[in-house]
Amino acid sequence: MKRKLKAGMVGGGRDAFIGAVHRIAMRLDGKIDLVAGAFSSSAEKSRLSGEDLLLDPDRVYPNYQTMVERELKLPIGERIDFVSIVTPNRTHVPIARAFLENSFNVVCDKPLAFNLEEALELQKVVEKSGKVFALTHNYTGYPMVKEARELVRKGELGTLLKVVVEYPQGWLIKPIEEEGQKQAAWRTNPEEAGASSSVGDIGTHAENLTRYITDLEIDEICAEFTTFVKGRMLEDDANMLVRYKGGAKGVLYASQISVGEENNLSIRVYGTKASLEWHQEEPNDLIVKYSEAPRRILRRGNGYLSDAAKRFTRIPAGHPEAFLEGFANIYLEAARAIDAVINGQPIPLDSDFPTVKDGVEGMRFVATAVSSAKEGAVWTKMK
Amino acid sequence: MKRKLKAGMVGGGRDAFIGAVHRIAMRLDGKIDLVAGAFSSSAEKSRLSGEDLLLDPDRVYPNYQTMVERELKLPIGERIDFVSIVTPNRTHVPIARAFLENSFNVVCDKPLAFNLEEALELQKVVEKSGKVFALTHNYTGYPMVKEARELVRKGELGTLLKVVVEYPQGWLIKPIEEEGQKQAAWRTNPEEAGASSSVGDIGTHAENLTRYITDLEIDEICAEFTTFVKGRMLEDDANMLVRYKGGAKGVLYASQISVGEENNLSIRVYGTKASLEWHQEEPNDLIVKYSEAPRRILRRGNGYLSDAAKRFTRIPAGHPEAFLEGFANIYLEAARAIDAVINGQPIPLDSDFPTVKDGVEGMRFVATAVSSAKEGAVWTKMK
Amino acid sequence: MKRKLKAGMVGGGRDAFIGAVHRIAMRLDGKIDLVAGAFSSSAEKSRLSGEDLLLDPDRVYPNYQTMVERELKLPIGERIDFVSIVTPNRTHVPIARAFLENSFNVVCDKPLAFNLEEALELQKVVEKSGKVFALTHNYTGYPMVKEARELVRKGELGTLLKVVVEYPQGWLIKPIEEEGQKQAAWRTNPEEAGASSSVGDIGTHAENLTRYITDLEIDEICAEFTTFVKGRMLEDDANMLVRYKGGAKGVLYASQISVGEENNLSIRVYGTKASLEWHQEEPNDLIVKYSEAPRRILRRGNGYLSDAAKRFTRIPAGHPEAFLEGFANIYLEAARAIDAVINGQPIPLDSDFPTVKDGVEGMRFVATAVSSAKEGAVWTKMK
Amino acid sequence: MKRKLKAGMVGGGRDAFIGAVHRIAMRLDGKIDLVAGAFSSSAEKSRLSGEDLLLDPDRVYPNYQTMVERELKLPIGERIDFVSIVTPNRTHVPIARAFLENSFNVVCDKPLAFNLEEALELQKVVEKSGKVFALTHNYTGYPMVKEARELVRKGELGTLLKVVVEYPQGWLIKPIEEEGQKQAAWRTNPEEAGASSSVGDIGTHAENLTRYITDLEIDEICAEFTTFVKGRMLEDDANMLVRYKGGAKGVLYASQISVGEENNLSIRVYGTKASLEWHQEEPNDLIVKYSEAPRRILRRGNGYLSDAAKRFTRIPAGHPEAFLEGFANIYLEAARAIDAVINGQPIPLDSDFPTVKDGVEGMRFVATAVSSAKEGAVWTKMK
Repeated sequence: MKRKLKAGMVGGGRDAFIGAVHRIAMRLDGKIDLVAGAFSSSAEKSRLSGEDLLLDPDRVYPNYQTMVERELKLPIGERIDFVSIVTPNRTHVPIARAFLENSFNVVCDKPLAFNLEEALELQKVVEKSGKVFALTHNYTGYPMVKEARELVRKGELGTLLKVVVEYPQGWLIKPIEEEGQKQAAWRTNPEEAGASSSVGDIGTHAENLTRYITDLEIDEICAEFTTFVKGRMLEDDANMLVRYKGGAKGVLYASQISVGEENNLSIRVYGTKASLEWHQEEPNDLIVKYSEAPRRILRRGNGYLSDAAKRFTRIPAGHPEAFLEGFANIYLEAARAIDAVINGQPIPLDSDFPTVKDGVEGMRFVATAVSSAKEGAVWTKMK
Repeated sequence: MKRKLKAGMVGGGRDAFIGAVHRIAMRLDGKIDLVAGAFSSSAEKSRLSGEDLLLDPDRVYPNYQTMVERELKLPIGERIDFVSIVTPNRTHVPIARAFLENSFNVVCDKPLAFNLEEALELQKVVEKSGKVFALTHNYTGYPMVKEARELVRKGELGTLLKVVVEYPQGWLIKPIEEEGQKQAAWRTNPEEAGASSSVGDIGTHAENLTRYITDLEIDEICAEFTTFVKGRMLEDDANMLVRYKGGAKGVLYASQISVGEENNLSIRVYGTKASLEWHQEEPNDLIVKYSEAPRRILRRGNGYLSDAAKRFTRIPAGHPEAFLEGFANIYLEAARAIDAVINGQPIPLDSDFPTVKDGVEGMRFVATAVSSAKEGAVWTKMK
Repeated sequence: MKRKLKAGMVGGGRDAFIGAVHRIAMRLDGKIDLVAGAFSSSAEKSRLSGEDLLLDPDRVYPNYQTMVERELKLPIGERIDFVSIVTPNRTHVPIARAFLENSFNVVCDKPLAFNLEEALELQKVVEKSGKVFALTHNYTGYPMVKEARELVRKGELGTLLKVVVEYPQGWLIKPIEEEGQKQAAWRTNPEEAGASSSVGDIGTHAENLTRYITDLEIDEICAEFTTFVKGRMLEDDANMLVRYKGGAKGVLYASQISVGEENNLSIRVYGTKASLEWHQEEPNDLIVKYSEAPRRILRRGNGYLSDAAKRFTRIPAGHPEAFLEGFANIYLEAARAIDAVINGQPIPLDSDFPTVKDGVEGMRFVATAVSSAKEGAVWTKMK
Repeated sequence: MKRKLKAGMVGGGRDAFIGAVHRIAMRLDGKIDLVAGAFSSSAEKSRLSGEDLLLDPDRVYPNYQTMVERELKLPIGERIDFVSIVTPNRTHVPIARAFLENSFNVVCDKPLAFNLEEALELQKVVEKSGKVFALTHNYTGYPMVKEARELVRKGELGTLLKVVVEYPQGWLIKPIEEEGQKQAAWRTNPEEAGASSSVGDIGTHAENLTRYITDLEIDEICAEFTTFVKGRMLEDDANMLVRYKGGAKGVLYASQISVGEENNLSIRVYGTKASLEWHQEEPNDLIVKYSEAPRRILRRGNGYLSDAAKRFTRIPAGHPEAFLEGFANIYLEAARAIDAVINGQPIPLDSDFPTVKDGVEGMRFVATAVSSAKEGAVWTKMK
């Protein structure tokens, strides 16, 4: 990389959560400068957010349309190299389309789209554009998740039989969306979030994490949705049985009403020879269990790990890395790809970041689960 | 108790697993002496097993029928006060019936019966007999499980919303039943075990543990059974979604092919106010989680626990108790009840041990799960 | 073993703690029957304790002297084969001597004696007697402690460099000895306990555990004693630096005022090639750490363990065993030795239980620590 | 803050470890831009490191003297606002002095100085300068460490009795300093590191962490130093007993040869009412233990924590933060103070970062420990 990349952001103004995470992830490795943004659907709020961020006021825009237009007028090298989209689900696709069709690379928060149709459309736009499109399924950025994938690929687990993936949270146990909590408000609103709350918001992470580690493809789902909090319009808890192609079976759940759980994504993968276990809240450890040998605890930062894990590690073992570093790994890889594209080269073959394809699969998963749930939790083929 | 109880045993000869566990559990508290037995369907093996146990050869019988007949001829006080049945599932009911109908109290290993019909019949026999019938769903004997039940009953969790109960084991990942492993042989043989392997053997523990802690009643089950090991006649893995009466939801699974898992029964119960978590492999801890307060770790042996937990504790906190002590707690309570019945008193109202009712519910659960699975994992009302 | 051994007990009446533990440990494996006792220095209390235990009143004695005398009059085979001594430290030696000199085998609680001189005397008595003398340093009975020793012996750790052994408890944070708590009263009374409280009571376990696992011999100690609770006559906290012969170094501490700690004995042993870590409160796991390989968790009950660990395991992996089973392992081995001696054979060479030698070493350790502490925590050669 | 601060760096070129950490910590919150540096004692290496960092070559200097001189010529606002010193110990003081005496603020890696005398001199220079001097005892930047301090200050633990603080690492088990490992080479070289290796490098963190949480002052130390690796010139393992003013006692150790340990700094503080426990490798949890109440696990990011912890938290509970975020918290506070000083205001009273005073105390601790060790591990008053 010859120069730092210049980034813009849509969304992520004051009160937002994930926008701040994206900004930290961008900064962490010193390869990206945030220089522009349309941080809110309120022009005033966008302006104030830009001030908070010490940005040049000329590059803080009242809306994304203006941002596209005005950035396009700047010379290459000064204009943004890519935009990060961190708005509610409903607007991902129109915003992404606007930037892609004007030759900007895009990093977009998940889930990809409002629904599967939109997702498929966007996929075409991305393919046509030749630009980089990265989706921040950030949990695949953790080094020990990459190690897990390597173990599966190297055959350490044998043939995969079963996957148990859980994503319990408890923050929506009360109807805080009615009390003005913005994060809750849009996630539980079908007009902003789409047809699902818990599955769209966190179930997609569970699905993506599973696919990343195992390469298993879902064949059928039986999904039970429940809305435990009265008056809420979308499900806040979803339990699923899964049939993978090839015969593996799965249990997957996502919950926003599991009181006392913080962000307890975890996965266990069972094969004929060994199994593995990883917990997002203790991300530096990967547990591998055998039938007839002691358990192993693989820990981030050690020399015995695969290159796949090592290249996403900044500091030595015992100096824990965590959520923000995992998130930054997505940006690191996206930046490497963007830098290549800017320089007229293809996206590196060894790139390791989630793409529009992951987003489409995620939306397919949401659509299938929603469909199963609507029919009373019946087995439904992946759409 | 004025004198030690005298116990007999059917099953549990050389090579058996659970018989030895029952014998340790009997002995632990010094209230029961094993004095007689028919330890095997092979008379010779029964005799040798009696020798191993340093028993009087006159009271080591070639089969249970002889045992009933010969023990009856001994005067009360010398004859056994109760029998422990630790044979494969198929024979539980006929043996139990034989003893109950001859006025012996019974402790029986789980699951109760070969099928639901048999279980219901036995329930009638028990009721008619006026004798004690205890079923060794031993996991409910753990003090911290009792504490968990107390927390639920006292309303500490609020209204219950969700239960996740898991019982993964890995010991049947290979067809060891074909290599003469006896434990595996009968558990995977429908003629010995009944219509289910994993659900009958360990799923029933998961169901019983959930019911014990929560008092929730299952309304419907959607059960996916898989036989991963080729040639095996019964399922070795079962994943279920559960609907409880009153609206709570559940995930329950039992697996014998989860490589590297030993005996990892665990339960998480989520309510509107708090949730709890307990792991059988670390049984002295009970974790309670709140939305807006620090997590608590309740530990066996402490003064702050409920009487329900305290009365099943032998040694101080930090001196861990485990599986055998939990198992012995079932015997302690069964012995107290048997002692009452022997002395012409009713079974104490505060008795805390699993009964034939638990056994019937367990068989109902197995039958429902089997039925759901046979139809392709469809929702099935509890039989 | 052709018949069960007959045991007597001195001490362990109502209100005692460790007596009850010894009785459970005796019973667990069905090889020992408790048939006689002098359970208290109060004849009345001894009688009542015998009643609680459903013993023949004729064999419940008012004091140990009478017990020796009367048991001697019974024929061999009916009289006790051994006595368990579970009284306060002060009386261990006179009682043990009385039984040994009358040809009874002895199991004795730790620490061995009131002081080092007494211990050395008793050692001579034991040697002269030709009888079995077992000391219940029960923590060495845990299977994973035995595995730890095997790993050291096999060279898995390389040359040993450092040992950190910790034994924090918190139960004496308040002067409960002044409120009639019997356990506290004698342990903090120099006339009952000897020259040390925390080191005598639990520090000796730490020392014994270290020596058992590592075979290291202490060369010098620098011991800082503190009495944190006002008015207490003995130290309730002791921190030590240790120099082992051969150059290894150590940290050892014992504390009774570490609030919130239950019985948190733990040990870490560091060698040139690997290190190990074991926690008494989670006794089924042994952690082994390497420089350049993943950590291993060895778990009780697995086939990959050494025979040394396997032969002290009753139930499969994942069915946790704990304190009482570890304690019972001392009795199992003592019983095997006693059975041999009774049958005119030598004590088996592969016997694995703590002996009078361990007791002498423990008293030497206490004496050295006390001496160091009295001089203001100066380096003091092992006495 | 009206504008981002401009930072320079001395040290931290290619192959360095801690320089990269400082750079990430600087960047994380978007308040600091690194614009200049003298990254190596080799001018060529400094130049290449500047290139790696995409810096303006004009501001990459061959040595720190040139850097001071040239930066001074730039107008305020363009010149660096502060310098980060990340060189080996020997050069901290001369470099810091050069910048302070030319009106630059300083952030310096620990330990403060080559020896105590130098440290005391530097303290005077800092005081005279009126500039900010921050020392990166980064472990005090962790939110749960701040919570621990709050608990102590609020009296939750009662009167403090005992502190156990441990810092085992294993990376120096082999003489890797002889194989060209740069990190090892200077840390084990008395001409670069000073009179101590393990105590200077990590023991000072243990001392600082203890003082930060407890406010206890050391009165006397008894320190046993060992050099386990042949040919090494400084100790690679140090065990200490500590007497604090007021009567509390302590155990403190630092080790570089504890094989398999990564960076396992941990602390336990025992008071009359409660105790706390924190492990750097799992930094999001703080365990609080009580005599007669359940243990509590306090977790970063929750609303029930103190403001002291909350203001150093970026993302919600369950989204773990770790080493780099803790380190960045030191920079956040240093930046706030520097910004104040630049704007002619006093350093904020609520500033929470380690200062030159911490550095002096650390060097006093090292000097005392070294002195104790040299005399054969005798009790030595704090210098």
